[in-house]
Amino acid sequence: MATPIDPTSAAFLLTENRNMPMHVGGLQLFEKPEGAGRNYTRELFEQMRDVDEVSPLFLKHPYRSVRTGGQLTWREDAQFDIEHHVRHSALPKPGRIRELLELCSRLHGTRLAWERPLWEAHVIEGLRDGRVALYTKTHHALVDGVSAMRLLQSVLSTDPDERDMPAPWGQAAGTRSRKKKSNDLVLSEAPMTALRSALGITAEAAGMPSALIKTITKGVRNETSSLSLHAPRTLFNQSITGSRRFAAQDWPIERLRAIGKATGTTLNDVVLAMCSGAMRTYLLELDALPEAPLVAMVPVGLNAKQSQIASADGGNAIGSVMVQLATDVHDPGKRLQKIHNSMRDGKQALSSMTPVQIMAMSALGQAPAIIAPMLRMQGIVRPPYNLIISNVPGPRTTHYWNGAKLVGTYPLSIPINGMALNITCTSYDGNMMFGLTGCRRTVPHLQRLLAYLDQELTALEKAAGV
Amino acid sequence: MATPIDPTSAAFLLTENRNMPMHVGGLQLFEKPEGAGRNYTRELFEQMRDVDEVSPLFLKHPYRSVRTGGQLTWREDAQFDIEHHVRHSALPKPGRIRELLELCSRLHGTRLAWERPLWEAHVIEGLRDGRVALYTKTHHALVDGVSAMRLLQSVLSTDPDERDMPAPWGQAAGTRSRKKKSNDLVLSEAPMTALRSALGITAEAAGMPSALIKTITKGVRNETSSLSLHAPRTLFNQSITGSRRFAAQDWPIERLRAIGKATGTTLNDVVLAMCSGAMRTYLLELDALPEAPLVAMVPVGLNAKQSQIASADGGNAIGSVMVQLATDVHDPGKRLQKIHNSMRDGKQALSSMTPVQIMAMSALGQAPAIIAPMLRMQGIVRPPYNLIISNVPGPRTTHYWNGAKLVGTYPLSIPINGMALNITCTSYDGNMMFGLTGCRRTVPHLQRLLAYLDQELTALEKAAGV
Repeated sequence: MATPIDPTSAAFLLTENRNMPMHVGGLQLFEKPEGAGRNYTRELFEQMRDVDEVSPLFLKHPYRSVRTGGQLTWREDAQFDIEHHVRHSALPKPGRIRELLELCSRLHGTRLAWERPLWEAHVIEGLRDGRVALYTKTHHALVDGVSAMRLLQSVLSTDPDERDMPAPWGQAAGTRSRKKKSNDLVLSEAPMTALRSALGITAEAAGMPSALIKTITKGVRNETSSLSLHAPRTLFNQSITGSRRFAAQDWPIERLRAIGKATGTTLNDVVLAMCSGAMRTYLLELDALPEAPLVAMVPVGLNAKQSQIASADGGNAIGSVMVQLATDVHDPGKRLQKIHNSMRDGKQALSSMTPVQIMAMSALGQAPAIIAPMLRMQGIVRPPYNLIISNVPGPRTTHYWNGAKLVGTYPLSIPINGMALNITCTSYDGNMMFGLTGCRRTVPHLQRLLAYLDQELTALEKAAGV
Repeated sequence: MATPIDPTSAAFLLTENRNMPMHVGGLQLFEKPEGAGRNYTRELFEQMRDVDEVSPLFLKHPYRSVRTGGQLTWREDAQFDIEHHVRHSALPKPGRIRELLELCSRLHGTRLAWERPLWEAHVIEGLRDGRVALYTKTHHALVDGVSAMRLLQSVLSTDPDERDMPAPWGQAAGTRSRKKKSNDLVLSEAPMTALRSALGITAEAAGMPSALIKTITKGVRNETSSLSLHAPRTLFNQSITGSRRFAAQDWPIERLRAIGKATGTTLNDVVLAMCSGAMRTYLLELDALPEAPLVAMVPVGLNAKQSQIASADGGNAIGSVMVQLATDVHDPGKRLQKIHNSMRDGKQALSSMTPVQIMAMSALGQAPAIIAPMLRMQGIVRPPYNLIISNVPGPRTTHYWNGAKLVGTYPLSIPINGMALNITCTSYDGNMMFGLTGCRRTVPHLQRLLAYLDQELTALEKAAGV
């Protein structure tokens, strides 16, 4: 019944502490279908709770076995209690998005106990606009953020009339996606194992990820000029506490794309420019903007041939680029251009790396939470980068779960010591959705960044003349 | 900064596991004052959260220090985050008492993490009758159930117009009650230490509570005939899981008192008869009623001279009586009479005990959760009793917190292995409030006991001719 935990997962479990819970989250917003009754949310909750069989991934919990010499093992929870994991909650009045984000911040700031399987899902009612929210929390030892979002998406359908759809943790979920073989949304336990392997391939060979670390350190510090950028110290690069603040908002992709077209930059460049401008305003207001520009670590998609790694969907792997955010530049248009150039240089440097280096960078991109503590980021004078900004493409069309229309999906990620803010974006159905996760104490008034992102988008439109 | 944890508290921490969280809870219901605005609950939550200074009891958390050789110590939480402890929640629709009890069951079934101070308070809105609920959770290593309820009551006032009243965890709370010196409601940290001492006096002398256990075992098994009752095995006396179900309801004390008057029995006898009848019906329905009558352990008030122990309020100490519940008797009137006789015999036996025996019984009454695992109740063939039924007198008059009228107060206690159901009653403002806490899996449909309690009260009224 007990199976050994692979070194990468074990490392996520062992580096975790009160100040750094190692779980990823997701917030989904659904619109009720036409003619939904007053008990709709309760029924939706019951559908999610009353699954026929729970997928093995959601049944196992870590266990330090005496028999295996104190090693961490996975063990099926003999007393598995679905009611502990799937919960029905409600928002206090007035039920604005603010109350929803407060609840998600609180839920995201509480650690998962090892004595039970490492996940929770909360069906949340009480939004005054009548929408239903779903907050899910999964330990990074089970899935990474991208996989968690894909797993959730794998149970969705483009058909608003489809019913009897399984919950993401239902046994049928994996089966269903294997049957469907849809290209962008497949994720069952098998591919997740593949993803893990891609991550831990060097690590597992060495028994511990030390070889991986060595490669990364080399890459970050010396190998290529664009990778050895110097990041200034900022308030984001401090030790953190266990308090979390989550902020989320979305903007039409068309607006971002129009800026890109007019300026010859990519969608991702515009996302980075928005973040850059917002952080500049935020830090200026706190009188804490460093003279040197901030550096973001940006995971990017890589061609499979380049990377020689198979990842979850059997297609592209992920590498990481260090991008100078030009936060020292006042003019939004010029800032966007500088970011574009830095990103281009970084990508070129990346494609000239060896497969092993790219794989190491890939692991760094997908597992920043674990790599950083190993680099002893806390102790080093200069952080290699100031924050991670990810942009994960999602489905382009409207999706449904048992008739409920998915209208928003926002990732909650893992702030760590030295990296108190994390920005993850995902595109869905014509909108770019920003999820900002930070330590509430280290990054005060984090939610203000949303207003600054909005301001910056307008400023970029003006600069681009659109 | 680190202070040693006394052996009794340490034992509560160390006997705890996933299936037996060692926290006590309280559920309070408040009516909003006249003219309360729509943001009333939020303001009440903010008053509770924004305390000037938090009492030391609520700032410390257990810590295994390397410096003290792995011993458990109390340490102040350097990163204390009140927002983690005081929370604003809401009920899903339709916001009945049922939804409230479901939320409390869920909250009560989750362990407090040692890495933070061992308490939580949830201000809950969304009851459709407009009342506001407060669920509090405190580890038994900090306070026992009676003290926890008294602490909550200590911040209340009989004056509906009084404002600027502190939260129970506010520093002012202790100060205030010390100033007031009101007889029945005083409880600051000092008396709590006294209470602990009363509990742990033998225990501390021995370094571990083994001497205490020895005395208790002797008392329970051999010393007095009324203490060596044989309790049958029931479904309540099994190993439990970590799932909790809480059920609560109240009845006018006048109805109970009228039965007592007509039959020459006490209020407590009537409470026990209600419980007995309800459990008989419950077990009959499950075809699980044993032939031999169930035995309850009932904590009773003792005269200070008898007990020679000073307790919390400097007045009475508490001893425990084993009472035969006559669940084998069909007739409600005869059952009440048998319970009355058994209670009388038990009290007589108790008053003939030596002070040390009474003190041991006292500890047993106040700390059943810890004593039972030490008696290895799980392993013994016959449990010494089937459940604990406590009846803790509360204030007789209406109390308020910053204008909010307290209309209900229900204790949530600790089910343990071998003792899956716990009934705690408290009187307040003319009502007898029953709180039933059990393991949801071991005691199925626990909430049915409420209906059976109601039936039994009616049957007793009929039998008594009132």
